[in-house]
Amino acid sequence: MLRPTDNGDRYELISPTAMPRAGGFLWNQKMMIQVTCRGYAVAQFMQPEPAKYAHAPNLEAKTFMQPEQNYYAHHPGRFFYIKDEETGQLFSAPYEPVRAPVDRFAFSVGKNDLAWTVEHLGVRVELTLSIPTADVVELWSLRVTDLSGRARKLSVYPYFPIGYMSWMNQSGEYRPDLGGVVASCVAPYQKVADYFKQKDFKDKTYFLCEEAPQAWEVQQQAFEGEGGLHRPSAIDLETLANGDARYETPAAVVQYRLALDAGQSHDYRFIFGPAFDDAEIAAMRARYLHAEGFTKARADYAQYIASGAGCLQIDTPDKELDNFVNHWLPRQVFYHGDVNRLSTDPQTRNYLQDNMGMSFIKPGVMRAALLHALAQQEDSGAMPDGILLVEGAELKYINQVPHTDHCVWLPIALKVYLDETGDYDVLAARVTGKDSGVTLTVAERMHAAMDWLLQARDERGLSYIAQGDWCDPMNMVGYKGKGVSGWLTVATAYALNLWAEMCEKSARSDSALADKAKHFRTGAQAVNRAANEHLWDGDWYARGITDDNVVFGVSKDVEGRIYLNPQAWAMLGGAANAGQRASIVEQVKQQLHTPYGVAMFAPPYSAMRDDVGRVTQKHPGSAENGAVYNHASIFYIYSLYQVGEGERAYELLRQMIPGPTEEDYLQRGQLPVFIPNYYRGAYHQYPRTAGRSSQLFNTGTVSWVYRCFVEGLCGLQGDVDGLRIAPQLPKHWDGIRVTRQFRGATFHVVIQRGDIHEIVVKLDGKRLPDTKVTGIVAGGVHALEVTIPR
Amino acid sequence: MLRPTDNGDRYELISPTAMPRAGGFLWNQKMMIQVTCRGYAVAQFMQPEPAKYAHAPNLEAKTFMQPEQNYYAHHPGRFFYIKDEETGQLFSAPYEPVRAPVDRFAFSVGKNDLAWTVEHLGVRVELTLSIPTADVVELWSLRVTDLSGRARKLSVYPYFPIGYMSWMNQSGEYRPDLGGVVASCVAPYQKVADYFKQKDFKDKTYFLCEEAPQAWEVQQQAFEGEGGLHRPSAIDLETLANGDARYETPAAVVQYRLALDAGQSHDYRFIFGPAFDDAEIAAMRARYLHAEGFTKARADYAQYIASGAGCLQIDTPDKELDNFVNHWLPRQVFYHGDVNRLSTDPQTRNYLQDNMGMSFIKPGVMRAALLHALAQQEDSGAMPDGILLVEGAELKYINQVPHTDHCVWLPIALKVYLDETGDYDVLAARVTGKDSGVTLTVAERMHAAMDWLLQARDERGLSYIAQGDWCDPMNMVGYKGKGVSGWLTVATAYALNLWAEMCEKSARSDSALADKAKHFRTGAQAVNRAANEHLWDGDWYARGITDDNVVFGVSKDVEGRIYLNPQAWAMLGGAANAGQRASIVEQVKQQLHTPYGVAMFAPPYSAMRDDVGRVTQKHPGSAENGAVYNHASIFYIYSLYQVGEGERAYELLRQMIPGPTEEDYLQRGQLPVFIPNYYRGAYHQYPRTAGRSSQLFNTGTVSWVYRCFVEGLCGLQGDVDGLRIAPQLPKHWDGIRVTRQFRGATFHVVIQRGDIHEIVVKLDGKRLPDTKVTGIVAGGVHALEVTIPR
Repeated sequence: MLRPTDNGDRYELISPTAMPRAGGFLWNQKMMIQVTCRGYAVAQFMQPEPAKYAHAPNLEAKTFMQPEQNYYAHHPGRFFYIKDEETGQLFSAPYEPVRAPVDRFAFSVGKNDLAWTVEHLGVRVELTLSIPTADVVELWSLRVTDLSGRARKLSVYPYFPIGYMSWMNQSGEYRPDLGGVVASCVAPYQKVADYFKQKDFKDKTYFLCEEAPQAWEVQQQAFEGEGGLHRPSAIDLETLANGDARYETPAAVVQYRLALDAGQSHDYRFIFGPAFDDAEIAAMRARYLHAEGFTKARADYAQYIASGAGCLQIDTPDKELDNFVNHWLPRQVFYHGDVNRLSTDPQTRNYLQDNMGMSFIKPGVMRAALLHALAQQEDSGAMPDGILLVEGAELKYINQVPHTDHCVWLPIALKVYLDETGDYDVLAARVTGKDSGVTLTVAERMHAAMDWLLQARDERGLSYIAQGDWCDPMNMVGYKGKGVSGWLTVATAYALNLWAEMCEKSARSDSALADKAKHFRTGAQAVNRAANEHLWDGDWYARGITDDNVVFGVSKDVEGRIYLNPQAWAMLGGAANAGQRASIVEQVKQQLHTPYGVAMFAPPYSAMRDDVGRVTQKHPGSAENGAVYNHASIFYIYSLYQVGEGERAYELLRQMIPGPTEEDYLQRGQLPVFIPNYYRGAYHQYPRTAGRSSQLFNTGTVSWVYRCFVEGLCGLQGDVDGLRIAPQLPKHWDGIRVTRQFRGATFHVVIQRGDIHEIVVKLDGKRLPDTKVTGIVAGGVHALEVTIPR
Repeated sequence: MLRPTDNGDRYELISPTAMPRAGGFLWNQKMMIQVTCRGYAVAQFMQPEPAKYAHAPNLEAKTFMQPEQNYYAHHPGRFFYIKDEETGQLFSAPYEPVRAPVDRFAFSVGKNDLAWTVEHLGVRVELTLSIPTADVVELWSLRVTDLSGRARKLSVYPYFPIGYMSWMNQSGEYRPDLGGVVASCVAPYQKVADYFKQKDFKDKTYFLCEEAPQAWEVQQQAFEGEGGLHRPSAIDLETLANGDARYETPAAVVQYRLALDAGQSHDYRFIFGPAFDDAEIAAMRARYLHAEGFTKARADYAQYIASGAGCLQIDTPDKELDNFVNHWLPRQVFYHGDVNRLSTDPQTRNYLQDNMGMSFIKPGVMRAALLHALAQQEDSGAMPDGILLVEGAELKYINQVPHTDHCVWLPIALKVYLDETGDYDVLAARVTGKDSGVTLTVAERMHAAMDWLLQARDERGLSYIAQGDWCDPMNMVGYKGKGVSGWLTVATAYALNLWAEMCEKSARSDSALADKAKHFRTGAQAVNRAANEHLWDGDWYARGITDDNVVFGVSKDVEGRIYLNPQAWAMLGGAANAGQRASIVEQVKQQLHTPYGVAMFAPPYSAMRDDVGRVTQKHPGSAENGAVYNHASIFYIYSLYQVGEGERAYELLRQMIPGPTEEDYLQRGQLPVFIPNYYRGAYHQYPRTAGRSSQLFNTGTVSWVYRCFVEGLCGLQGDVDGLRIAPQLPKHWDGIRVTRQFRGATFHVVIQRGDIHEIVVKLDGKRLPDTKVTGIVAGGVHALEVTIPR
């Protein structure tokens, strides 16, 4: 059913019904499009806030991107009807809205394009969608081929619903001068000031045809008629009525009457996107809507995606894993660092982690992001809830809710950057506050952030939670100002220790940093002491203590008894000693492991718990409430690698990637081309839906997954002066091969088991005195032989 | 095709395809539901802001109620599938989503219920929807009857899509204990404060069955399957799968396996609505879901609607007109005054006019509304943009945009109330300011409002427009603070004159009022002089002058050359002399008359005119841009009656009600059960869509239409001391009969033409000295014979 192509950089799905929501996505700097195998598509672009050019039939709420999107008959499709003019038979490609049981179906998700081959009624339809690197436009190519061995008379109808654009000035018509359908509106507004904000919006949606069609329809209802979209009335007529849309819901439909000789093919090209005016539409046509334009755009886009290749190529006994790590994972990491989830105000923790991943791909991007974020640090040392990326951007949605964790992510992200680049000079870089105008070094701003974390604690030494602290948004634990977070407490210790370590490593040239290191190490110890005194519940750490002094996430709780995050971070931050770690690992296994990953907490809440808040209000089995929330899971996996539990870590890491069994793909409903933000949890309560993918590929998870492969599994982590070697292969692997790009040099690494007791590393055939390669010179190419104990 | 029933209080439509959006609506104090003949329904209720219990498949934007709503396959339906178990044939009632070409179809819109009869496959389906007076719940009865004369095996599947409720905690299941489907969610929120605002929301949607079904499905996708809603896959199985919805989009579907003997019927009852918790659902079941509950609710509701009967019954040569004026028009007037369009912050002008209409129905409601509105008057005398109706309500949407016309509507609405009731004592009623705490009489607050209008003028004596002044929302004419409104200038004169007149009439007991009357008369004269100096364009009045001193709505304009509102109100307010009035009437006829009514302005704008603003941004042919905007038209009609142009006035008034020709119904797409806020205009530019009804029954138009029938056509207007008689019948009518309720007395009026030169009035057989009935005593019943010249 699921068919990887030979070189592994595509996946093919050969049924549209088995995983109806399975899809792929493409993005460039200005747009994102997610397309399902059946032909639904959700596309967004920036102007500067996220906007749509194909709309729902009713006015859509502006909201953040939601998981588990719903599709329905009119929206948001990219459909191609094929009618046999001799028999009147009809089908549609990719699949919707006719849903004919076609003879052959293949949906092919590539890194640079999405493609379908559909065969029915003796006709083959080949569809390809690509996008260019810098413009907001979909490039659709369509090939229709006779397979019947006789001459055919067909009609071909691309149907692109445009939807309810606005209650202001909505209309649409076919424009012979531009060669396609153009729908227009004015983005709705009421206050005069909003008009000036919106007047340069791309309020037109166009669908242009390279070859002039024989007929068209622009009014959705007139096209659909009484037949319904599965058999539109307009298709039963000889030709479309060449209608227009006057305030009616616009759609772009054109008709080609196509005569094919036996075995003959015909090619079409179309472009679909938003524009400001006719001139822009004409320019897009000139630039793209021809064979050369499509070819060039595809080549440019392939080059663009290739520029986001990662620093790791693996060759393991698990070929599906190799494919994911070598192709799809760095692509998803690149997407996050490249476009910041198409937001103008990414949450600070997301911004830092998404850019953190760029340390492995384009470290300069991470460096710039760090400076950009620090320029928005408040005078108190606190980081804001979101980082504004463009002039005029505002903090929206969740960024208007006070969270207390943002400073934690600074040393975490910085550490990855420094490990990968050794660029400790960045600590001396000067950053001028956006609002304050005060100029401080990166190191000074890091100190301030860490001191802010130290002071944002109560008299017990525990960290305040305010209205939330991260990925299990418990907004009522501390909204009165007293409640504390167990996770944030141990995470604070982790952040302080990380920053202290960086200060120590950098202190060779700056004795003041050595003093700071001591200061923060001492702080971390105090924080961890407080955690152990107030939060250790006997076998694991509590999740927090409410405003009214109720400890929760503890053994006496019937629901929400154990939370993953405090356990993982206590291991990372040093709160947990060896005995506690062993207990934690056992409890997590007993209470949180599921066949689809580690749940964020368990048991899920069945109803609102007023003193905890919103976490109880997601559906049991979804997202925060008892789900396998991958961003939480990956920290646990990372912490297992950190404490040498590589066997268990790998098992959970592998679970995060769908497959390789057919049963697993079906249950998750997703191709292994990205890691979603969650899989449904509540495995014991709702086995029917457990494991189901959210289909939402925006997640801070992926930079950490990449890090786990680089540093954990392959054990090839950078240090101030070189590359440390400490692989942790699963026991059932005898060895792997790795190509690691590091500071401009290339290492061809062979890791294999041998009858030894301690790891042995040979660089270009010479055994190294310890497990670190130093003196690395850019441009070098080296062979690294690593032998590890059986 | 369109079939009024014998007594005229219902309309029946016998095809679902000819006017697919035609529908009816029901409301009570807490809810409103608009249902189309095909089975789509838009329902809202208050908690306290408008809310939904059946949702769009994607998250819906919160916005004001829009005209020309779109429907689509999944939403927002009330569907009943009928399957012949012996043949597998399927159809659905009312019509969607199967859209089978049924043998018989009748959609029957009553004042108290909506009903359908559908016959197909030898089965009759009778559906009725009603609602109770005070609860938010739909009461559905379903009767299935065999028509084939043989025993039948059927399955009956009510299908009520519930839609995407929320991204928080969405789920649904069949609850045997409650006897139906219950879907749950938490209304989405992010800020803790919003949780407390929302935590008592009715976040559950229930669909309960009186008779327990054999099977059910609660997950929309599982029901639809690959078959699509026109042939749901679940219906092809013997029984539904008894599924649940876990974060999936919920829908309520139940299955009854029904064996009918030849000619036998079976009855079902269902209820559908929102609830806070299980206890409320159980209570609704106990209260309504049985034959007695339905019967009682119907009786109570009929009584409730009957309590909103008007003060006028007419018997004219035009039976369609009689039916509309006697049944449907007062019902629509009652709706407006009863529930204020289901808003918590109605625009001040809407609030005053909607309640103004209650002067003819329940005058006490109007009196209370006047006092309520005046309590929100600002210290300056200005009225706010909206009137807050409940604790915690806020000014939203358009009410955040400053408009300058609100004071105008005070004397207009008050005049109708005083004419109808003679309750001049209200002027001495004391009103304490909601914010200021200052107590003033109604008269003092009216003075302040009129003085505010007088001062809100520029050095030329013209009224500022700010960001808008009423029904052609030109938000850029005066946003810099200088632009003026031609309409508001002449409307100010009208308001001042009206108030002066009321002061004069009341001055018998208060000489201070006589002085005020002079003051405002003088003010009105000054305003009108300014209008004639700066705004008279030779043949009509200009619409305004922009911030940058551009006069518009004048003969040199190519688009927006003449606006209706300044003309109508110049006639009402006294700016226009007889010569000017004649010129205006001619120009309006030449430039604005269309077969579907008088356009608000012409020619429509084809593109944005930056100095005028938003008016140019509605679609040409819709709403403000060149439409037949009924609220504007009715003032022109009223002004024609005021100046004795009754013949022309009637012609336009009759045009406002769809019909009576089939062609007219089809073009408008609406039954004559309400007047919509607009008919599409741009008749010359877009004849295909001109005349099409907006289907939006919220409009300030209707109280004025009623007033035109009472005071204009029938000429039965109240005065301080009695009832004035001055009918203006169209020439082709020889006479009419009228029953007029007035101050507790009943007048049976016969108006007929006679060979006389001046009107003759006989009361109970005795000729009156002038055309006024005085000394009216409540409870009296009188015969009034009115003879008018041929």
